[in-house]
Amino acid sequence: MSLTLDAVQALDAADPLAPFRERFDLPPGVIYLDGNSLGALPKAARDAVARTVSEDWGRGLIRSWNDAGWMEAPRRVGDKIARLVGAEAGEVVVADSTSVNLFKLAAAALKARPGRGVILTEPGNFPTDLYVAQGVAALLPGVEVRAVAAADIPAALGADVGLLLLTHSHYKTAQVHDMAGLTAAAHAVGALVLWDLSHSAGAIPVDLGAAQADLAVGCGYKFLNGGPGAPAFLYVARRHQQSLVSPLTGWLGHAAPFDFADDYRPADGIERFLCGTPPVLGLAALEAGVDIALAAPADALAHKLKRLTGLFITEVETRCAGHGLELVTPRHGPRGSHVSFAHPEAYRIMQALIARGVIGDFREPDILRFGLTPLYLGYEDIWRAAGVLAQVLASGAWRDQPHRVAGRVT
Amino acid sequence: MSLTLDAVQALDAADPLAPFRERFDLPPGVIYLDGNSLGALPKAARDAVARTVSEDWGRGLIRSWNDAGWMEAPRRVGDKIARLVGAEAGEVVVADSTSVNLFKLAAAALKARPGRGVILTEPGNFPTDLYVAQGVAALLPGVEVRAVAAADIPAALGADVGLLLLTHSHYKTAQVHDMAGLTAAAHAVGALVLWDLSHSAGAIPVDLGAAQADLAVGCGYKFLNGGPGAPAFLYVARRHQQSLVSPLTGWLGHAAPFDFADDYRPADGIERFLCGTPPVLGLAALEAGVDIALAAPADALAHKLKRLTGLFITEVETRCAGHGLELVTPRHGPRGSHVSFAHPEAYRIMQALIARGVIGDFREPDILRFGLTPLYLGYEDIWRAAGVLAQVLASGAWRDQPHRVAGRVT
Repeated sequence: MSLTLDAVQALDAADPLAPFRERFDLPPGVIYLDGNSLGALPKAARDAVARTVSEDWGRGLIRSWNDAGWMEAPRRVGDKIARLVGAEAGEVVVADSTSVNLFKLAAAALKARPGRGVILTEPGNFPTDLYVAQGVAALLPGVEVRAVAAADIPAALGADVGLLLLTHSHYKTAQVHDMAGLTAAAHAVGALVLWDLSHSAGAIPVDLGAAQADLAVGCGYKFLNGGPGAPAFLYVARRHQQSLVSPLTGWLGHAAPFDFADDYRPADGIERFLCGTPPVLGLAALEAGVDIALAAPADALAHKLKRLTGLFITEVETRCAGHGLELVTPRHGPRGSHVSFAHPEAYRIMQALIARGVIGDFREPDILRFGLTPLYLGYEDIWRAAGVLAQVLASGAWRDQPHRVAGRVT
Repeated sequence: MSLTLDAVQALDAADPLAPFRERFDLPPGVIYLDGNSLGALPKAARDAVARTVSEDWGRGLIRSWNDAGWMEAPRRVGDKIARLVGAEAGEVVVADSTSVNLFKLAAAALKARPGRGVILTEPGNFPTDLYVAQGVAALLPGVEVRAVAAADIPAALGADVGLLLLTHSHYKTAQVHDMAGLTAAAHAVGALVLWDLSHSAGAIPVDLGAAQADLAVGCGYKFLNGGPGAPAFLYVARRHQQSLVSPLTGWLGHAAPFDFADDYRPADGIERFLCGTPPVLGLAALEAGVDIALAAPADALAHKLKRLTGLFITEVETRCAGHGLELVTPRHGPRGSHVSFAHPEAYRIMQALIARGVIGDFREPDILRFGLTPLYLGYEDIWRAAGVLAQVLASGAWRDQPHRVAGRVT
């Protein structure tokens, strides 16, 4: 049953996370439901980037590698992200992109498991996970990618599997895998597991340590609000750090980069998974985003996310009934920080929503995706967004929108 | 013979590039001779980054991938860099770090040349070039790294060589390889050549097209003034683009990334060497730096660089005679955009210079390195820097400085 405006305003008034909205700079007239694709701008990120450019780069110049903490930033921000995903200090580092980090860890894991050449994954996994796995298979002899439906993964874990590669929270459906259970199943046959946390970190509870996770990567620009193309992170459980070597042996992964020796010698700890010079501007923005996530109580975040997603599902299903929307996000049980509906005209419906200031996104072939971010969205926002969707569907206004043009970001 | 102050001021007054200094924000009281390690801050970069953060990210949010040109930025900035290095539009793209790009191109070249597993390079090449080559050799069966002195490279080019990997302008000595000659020699035995342009692009004339170059990478944060950890670039000659496949098959290298298909299909052109989501903040700063380099007449840059480096060598050798400095940069013939001297106490001498506002850097084991950047340095700057060096040496003031501490950026 749909709630009244009074009722959702009462929920906002009682929301302990409501003050966090003030930490973000959101455009007026917009309900932003795409933080799962690009998180909103933290005011502190704007300030941190400006300071990094004008002061640290402009005034400090080369000295800032030492004096402004640039050199330590990948590890410092990594240690902060570690606290969001149940890892220990020294198990996470910020580097490169999610795709590059997937390659590093997948290739390192396969090299360390000769004779176990199968990368097991699921079809419909986030494309870059599949593409990188295919790239590793094309590069390394004896490696192949095997994609089986999620339900069949436990049965497909055989002695030939070296690596299980899964996205924790699915980018389209928001379904969440049982990290501890699948990790245990993989360990039982001697395989490692590489978790893509891109749609989980900063969004839903993740406990890599409790799950005995081996390896993980994640995205900086979604729920960590690190800005467009923010650097990504990677996690390697401490017990694996000495036995895995990154295939991308750039100078920042060297044990002593400023010795400028001719021979590569990997750093002892997580730094061996660094490669090139760290992207300082991106790190400055990301650190500001991560600091906000750390300031929010994890239990309040989880509680609000559950209520926001539940409210949105109820409001949409009640107010848009009869218009052909089909919920593809789990109605019960664990789900990520977005809600998706299938509709044959999803692309044009989303364009009509965006034209009305409700920004979600479209995913092939027929998915309307709405990211619900507890840090900067309130219950009234969600309720109003459902109302706009109902109006767009009832009026047929989406028919005025153009069809998708290839090449455009969706 | 040392020039007078009047004489160097006359050189500055006649310098057609002198107005470019106003485009940079340099700290007062500093003579910055480390643009070869981190270029100075272009005022336009500060503005571009601020606009990208506040407007494009903060207001446009996800829409800016289409509306603010974020999606095209790697190719757009790549096309601009192409004009600086003698490449054509569509042959250069901005992506990742120099190290990651070295890996992509070296691995792609070796995979395309089965049975020719030797990566030929020189000892003392920039470490990340050597390290990445070693990483490729560790990863791919049948690949090995062979390092021979520069003079022996032509003789070492045999039928087993798949790739010649060299840095065009040496990071310590500023020696410049004969790009056209070595490329022709490599082609004569069927090998490809991968040039690292990190110390050349934006600094000295480079003509990849005229040299029939195959592959190249380069750094964004040195002479292109793209900011700390700026994204790097890579070049693949058009004739090789269809036959080489990046081993880092991330989603942005896909022919149709927003189709979200399960199977990787590389893009037709240079975009196939992209991997993850582009680092938008870094790209904004880099584009501003590249725009300045494009605005400067190439012949004036080359002329001024030759005079600046020549003046500095003469002033130092004249005014510091008897203090044990040994020039390691070529006195005649092609040289890059820095001048280096060896001295057993190089580290402490450089610290004394930095304490006096003359910022160069130290390179193991005994190198004082001075980057001379025509865009924001004048003849008087160089002349004064030589005077400070003479004073530090004559007074022995460097003896007050601490010895090098491991781990610090030098």
